[in-house]
Amino acid sequence: MSDIKKAVLAYSGGLDTSVILKWLQDTYQCEVVTFTADVGQGEELEPARAKALKMGITPENIYIDDLREEFVRDFVFPMFRANTVYEGEYLLGTSIARPLIAKRLIEIASMTGAQAISHGATGKGNDQVRFELGAYALNPNIKVIAPWREWDLLSREKLMAYAEKHGIPVEMKHKQGGSPYSMDANLLHISYEGRHLEDPAAEAEDSMWRWTVSPEVAPDAAEYLDLEFKNGDIVALNGTAMSPATILAKLNELGGRHGIGRLDLVENRYVGMKSRGCYETPGGTIMLKAHRAIESITLDREVAHLKDDLMPRYASMIYNGYWWAPERLVLQTLIDATQKTVNGWVRVKLYKGNVIVVGRDSKTDSLFDPTIATFEDDKGAYDQKDAAGFIKLNALRLRIAAKLHSK
Amino acid sequence: MSDIKKAVLAYSGGLDTSVILKWLQDTYQCEVVTFTADVGQGEELEPARAKALKMGITPENIYIDDLREEFVRDFVFPMFRANTVYEGEYLLGTSIARPLIAKRLIEIASMTGAQAISHGATGKGNDQVRFELGAYALNPNIKVIAPWREWDLLSREKLMAYAEKHGIPVEMKHKQGGSPYSMDANLLHISYEGRHLEDPAAEAEDSMWRWTVSPEVAPDAAEYLDLEFKNGDIVALNGTAMSPATILAKLNELGGRHGIGRLDLVENRYVGMKSRGCYETPGGTIMLKAHRAIESITLDREVAHLKDDLMPRYASMIYNGYWWAPERLVLQTLIDATQKTVNGWVRVKLYKGNVIVVGRDSKTDSLFDPTIATFEDDKGAYDQKDAAGFIKLNALRLRIAAKLHSK
Amino acid sequence: MSDIKKAVLAYSGGLDTSVILKWLQDTYQCEVVTFTADVGQGEELEPARAKALKMGITPENIYIDDLREEFVRDFVFPMFRANTVYEGEYLLGTSIARPLIAKRLIEIASMTGAQAISHGATGKGNDQVRFELGAYALNPNIKVIAPWREWDLLSREKLMAYAEKHGIPVEMKHKQGGSPYSMDANLLHISYEGRHLEDPAAEAEDSMWRWTVSPEVAPDAAEYLDLEFKNGDIVALNGTAMSPATILAKLNELGGRHGIGRLDLVENRYVGMKSRGCYETPGGTIMLKAHRAIESITLDREVAHLKDDLMPRYASMIYNGYWWAPERLVLQTLIDATQKTVNGWVRVKLYKGNVIVVGRDSKTDSLFDPTIATFEDDKGAYDQKDAAGFIKLNALRLRIAAKLHSK
Amino acid sequence: MSDIKKAVLAYSGGLDTSVILKWLQDTYQCEVVTFTADVGQGEELEPARAKALKMGITPENIYIDDLREEFVRDFVFPMFRANTVYEGEYLLGTSIARPLIAKRLIEIASMTGAQAISHGATGKGNDQVRFELGAYALNPNIKVIAPWREWDLLSREKLMAYAEKHGIPVEMKHKQGGSPYSMDANLLHISYEGRHLEDPAAEAEDSMWRWTVSPEVAPDAAEYLDLEFKNGDIVALNGTAMSPATILAKLNELGGRHGIGRLDLVENRYVGMKSRGCYETPGGTIMLKAHRAIESITLDREVAHLKDDLMPRYASMIYNGYWWAPERLVLQTLIDATQKTVNGWVRVKLYKGNVIVVGRDSKTDSLFDPTIATFEDDKGAYDQKDAAGFIKLNALRLRIAAKLHSK
Repeated sequence: MSDIKKAVLAYSGGLDTSVILKWLQDTYQCEVVTFTADVGQGEELEPARAKALKMGITPENIYIDDLREEFVRDFVFPMFRANTVYEGEYLLGTSIARPLIAKRLIEIASMTGAQAISHGATGKGNDQVRFELGAYALNPNIKVIAPWREWDLLSREKLMAYAEKHGIPVEMKHKQGGSPYSMDANLLHISYEGRHLEDPAAEAEDSMWRWTVSPEVAPDAAEYLDLEFKNGDIVALNGTAMSPATILAKLNELGGRHGIGRLDLVENRYVGMKSRGCYETPGGTIMLKAHRAIESITLDREVAHLKDDLMPRYASMIYNGYWWAPERLVLQTLIDATQKTVNGWVRVKLYKGNVIVVGRDSKTDSLFDPTIATFEDDKGAYDQKDAAGFIKLNALRLRIAAKLHSK
Repeated sequence: MSDIKKAVLAYSGGLDTSVILKWLQDTYQCEVVTFTADVGQGEELEPARAKALKMGITPENIYIDDLREEFVRDFVFPMFRANTVYEGEYLLGTSIARPLIAKRLIEIASMTGAQAISHGATGKGNDQVRFELGAYALNPNIKVIAPWREWDLLSREKLMAYAEKHGIPVEMKHKQGGSPYSMDANLLHISYEGRHLEDPAAEAEDSMWRWTVSPEVAPDAAEYLDLEFKNGDIVALNGTAMSPATILAKLNELGGRHGIGRLDLVENRYVGMKSRGCYETPGGTIMLKAHRAIESITLDREVAHLKDDLMPRYASMIYNGYWWAPERLVLQTLIDATQKTVNGWVRVKLYKGNVIVVGRDSKTDSLFDPTIATFEDDKGAYDQKDAAGFIKLNALRLRIAAKLHSK
Repeated sequence: MSDIKKAVLAYSGGLDTSVILKWLQDTYQCEVVTFTADVGQGEELEPARAKALKMGITPENIYIDDLREEFVRDFVFPMFRANTVYEGEYLLGTSIARPLIAKRLIEIASMTGAQAISHGATGKGNDQVRFELGAYALNPNIKVIAPWREWDLLSREKLMAYAEKHGIPVEMKHKQGGSPYSMDANLLHISYEGRHLEDPAAEAEDSMWRWTVSPEVAPDAAEYLDLEFKNGDIVALNGTAMSPATILAKLNELGGRHGIGRLDLVENRYVGMKSRGCYETPGGTIMLKAHRAIESITLDREVAHLKDDLMPRYASMIYNGYWWAPERLVLQTLIDATQKTVNGWVRVKLYKGNVIVVGRDSKTDSLFDPTIATFEDDKGAYDQKDAAGFIKLNALRLRIAAKLHSK
Repeated sequence: MSDIKKAVLAYSGGLDTSVILKWLQDTYQCEVVTFTADVGQGEELEPARAKALKMGITPENIYIDDLREEFVRDFVFPMFRANTVYEGEYLLGTSIARPLIAKRLIEIASMTGAQAISHGATGKGNDQVRFELGAYALNPNIKVIAPWREWDLLSREKLMAYAEKHGIPVEMKHKQGGSPYSMDANLLHISYEGRHLEDPAAEAEDSMWRWTVSPEVAPDAAEYLDLEFKNGDIVALNGTAMSPATILAKLNELGGRHGIGRLDLVENRYVGMKSRGCYETPGGTIMLKAHRAIESITLDREVAHLKDDLMPRYASMIYNGYWWAPERLVLQTLIDATQKTVNGWVRVKLYKGNVIVVGRDSKTDSLFDPTIATFEDDKGAYDQKDAAGFIKLNALRLRIAAKLHSK
């Protein structure tokens, strides 16, 4: 039926991708390689292996990879160097995991000689774009099979009917209607979309949130946290050096406990519609706040402003799926170049949903010069009379124009 | 001594501007007009009149104006239409009041035939720049007298000695060392700088904060608030229409009660140094969050992104004192043009330092289309197959490059 | 076969759109309304009427409109206010005509009760995007029929075979292989693509160019030209007031005579590939140069820089077909707001491909102040000592950083 | 009189800097080190040595350096990688030489133990800013002596009187009133300001131009030129590899012969006023055109657009004197990163003021894919049907908005 003899499927082990697995076998008559990644979503991966085996996938065609360190080190941390926020609010938790999955799919396709990759993202969302732009950028000849855009199983009922017909186990939760939300999770965040959230006027149910407690039930005592930065990345918590993934996991735990990082948002998708999403990004919320704080004393003003001016564009690149595009790569060289001096520590206070910066310093790179900023006698470090000329020349064009207009 | 016969002084009635008043009379041998504005700083203005009279200012030379409505309507609200934040954090509370003071100083200079204006801002700060750029833009021939850049009373001791020598009453608090902070307040915020804050590593004292309670002592019960927007401005709270200044005052009260809007920041001054400031902006913090939320459903994606891209530049214009410059004026036309559709309501929940958006809607301008975004059957509103072509063409340049590089 | 009962076709009268006309009648079994616009392409329009009648179009379904003044006034001039250039070179001659055609197609569809519009743009180019984005923005329910994306007449041979089979007259030039170029013309420019140009290493044939003489054969005598601007638009040539279209036609004539406005370019299409185009934009080349010159004395520096910073984005909006999108509309408000002061005159010298600005002035709006800029004695208009403070404060952050690094 | 015991003077050997030399000796009672650089201004440097000796400068305090290669390699070429143009026209010929002079002044100050540097730039221009910002960024403790801002020799008469009084030889040309222009030259350009040019309405005199012939008297025969690029820099002309300075010198010769690179401009100075300048940049004009051409086939679309968006800001950084500032340095990392693929050749035709690109190609890095762009049968390289989905999704937000507005 096609020239696709082998396809690598991004396989979670859940109902949807299990149906896709079967559908690929039937529709494309091709060998399927399953790829299941641990990016910190907090689910057991071994059941995915068992399910794959049961569906006839040979052991050498089953890839289960722990990508947590790579995810945080090469994707999350570089993104946070730019203080990246999409549309003023969203920390891009889903977006930033997709290029890693795309990269790994292409690597496995190469290793296994597969002609195609396949994924379970729908035709309405951003994730299909992120997977596929990444895949094409890394392998221009790859074929992409996006079942949701091809098949006719467009309702949950049809999907379950297909599953039952083909002997795919359907868990009780699906029979009972499944989760009311479409969810995605990784070390950076967990997201919720759909159902109850499709009315943006209605408040999200408190029972929806999974990673964070409500600020109302968070501890009554605040907790202080010292974060040490090196070249813009956090390298130690409270004096203890940790790996990137360990740091983020620990920050998630701390932030979650204190009700930090919930977000309820209507965002603009790349495919053209607005959608409402709720997110929990406890560790990321702490990281963003702390990173801005360490930059506030270690970054030159104009460098910081250049970064701020470019940040929304960088955020859109990631949101829209252009992580592997050359424009993101060259922009990253600029961002990374700015971080050489971003070394030092930040102290934050966590309390019932708040991340409060209470102190920051850098032994090596602080540009804060108390002898100049002081309201006290500065012993000549700054000559106030200079300000007169500074203002006069900055005002010159305004005065020339005002003179003209007053004629 | 000079060709200045009359000067308008921005006069608070406090020690510093009282000394300046006397110093102007002595140094410039000129008539002084005092201008005291109520921009919501929360202080009695009549004592300023009494002091001015006592220092020999004639009644017709004393201007005391209530500018609160003008301040919020023509300065604060236009700025919030852009979701304006300086350096990722600062809501520009001090910056936005200065151009109004500058405008009024020039108006009074014109009415009274004064050749000069004078202010009490120091030579190290941004406020001198904001006052003077505004003044020059509005009257290119105005003379500016900035005593802090001219005199030699550069320590508090000298200032008090001068005061005592000239019979200027010095309040007990000054004798005792004065406030440990340099403060500024208006309807949008109160700020603290100096002394204890000059070490950015040290946490601000809890006793410093004046407008907000600490989140820890805020009420245990959350409070919901409905905000109605018209053309991007809030026009009603909980269903009650109010004037701009009334709205902001009310939001300050509500926000302050719930511990909302504290900020501890190291910022980059226009005059070149970093300085640490603490700010309380309770109402503004609520407004910013709510404004983004109403925009999220009423603003086109690309318009929103254009605004986000331009916002840091707009913020710098205001921070640096270019409110009355043509680049700010033309940028404002763009910003205001985007707000025609920003109508609707937002519901927020206030709780111990958190402003949580829980719902938003617009009867007239919502671009959120549930029939398209839905995970359920959309009855053909969106053809998922379109996404294939969308991705294919967006990937084309990436694939061409990848093919070249794979050769 | 479809619910399309009537379709408006952008009809040039040429072979391609004549085949489309017939194909629409056959394939969609629908009534066809033809729309032929004079946007200054320099072709007789009445033959199109005769051809349409011959193909069975009823007289009331034939629209032939002279859109030249609207084209220049409402599309070309607003675009030139921004000094718009795509990718550093291209003056957007084709791009800017498409939104007008789209608008008129939608208007005629509305007047005639048509459900669809149709055009002859191919599936590889930008024009399909420009037509369709414009159409959808103006009428979200319109159906678009793009035959080149639907039919199988994808070679010139098949097209001609179809024409002959259906009795559509094929002119001799087509039988002989047709023009070696794909061309488009309107009052702003004429473009060439395809065939000989598909090798970007090869020089364009001199015989290709139609509107301009080669600089080599242009007159040996230069010609001076005075251009008067009002609000950023040219309103008079050599002292004679003229309508927008008359001005552009006259500038084309003058520029063409002097070999001005040829361009040979490889550009990046919105649909993802690079393509080589050659363009002749004689009048536009003069306008751009002159507009920058009048702005150089009438526009504030920061306003000019803001425009320059935004220009490439504005150019992309137009190139990509977003003329009718809200982001272009709000950006236009900014651009137009900047042009209030752009009044005065510019003198240019035309000579063998060169447009040389030799003088510019504005009686009402010149910000050039010779008393300040002069190398001679300025009698105190500018205090050179102010520069010391200006430099000192601008250098402050650099010195603080240098001190740190020198430790 | 001061703590300055030794000062390094940027010394041309001309009248102005000779007067400054003497004035420094008298006013500051300090040892003077003279620094004379060959940046390609086309003047003999040895006379400067003789004059310095005559004015009592010791041989070891006389520095005469040939900086031409460094100038082009490390300053001009990096700037051209960004297609840098200030205010749409100016190629920054003066601006780009200043940071090199500043760097060398600081190096010599360090080698000779000087506390100060001095220069002959006036208090009204940009050059003082460029020298001093560069110097402060490289040595925060350096003292700067800017005689034009300090002394009272503010007219030519006073200057000559001072010279004669102190036995400084005044050449005949000065006695006769000197050049009517203030000029500056280096390998990139020669500039003219002042006198006759202070009326922007008046055409520059033809006798003013020195480096280029008028297009009218340029050869009647065009000349073709092949330029080879490596990583964005020109490395060979007509097949012959040359050093950076040799290339630029050769391009100046060729461009000058063909009347290329004249510019008559009113520009906005950093110090606040508009000024009129005329420039000849023959080689640079060719380089800019050719560089854009090689980028047109080797640069990704979005990378090119990112560069275009950032270019005006980069140009302002250089114009305003921020070459050594961190924001320029980090932006350069982005620019340089984009140039890795900018390899290939460009053919230009030089003719009477015109630089016409007639061909371009890259064996290694061309992204131009003729199999896709072709109007002929592309054998399936591009599926035109993809365009339908591309347009549909890009139009989605426009259609949703249009539906709302049509209600």
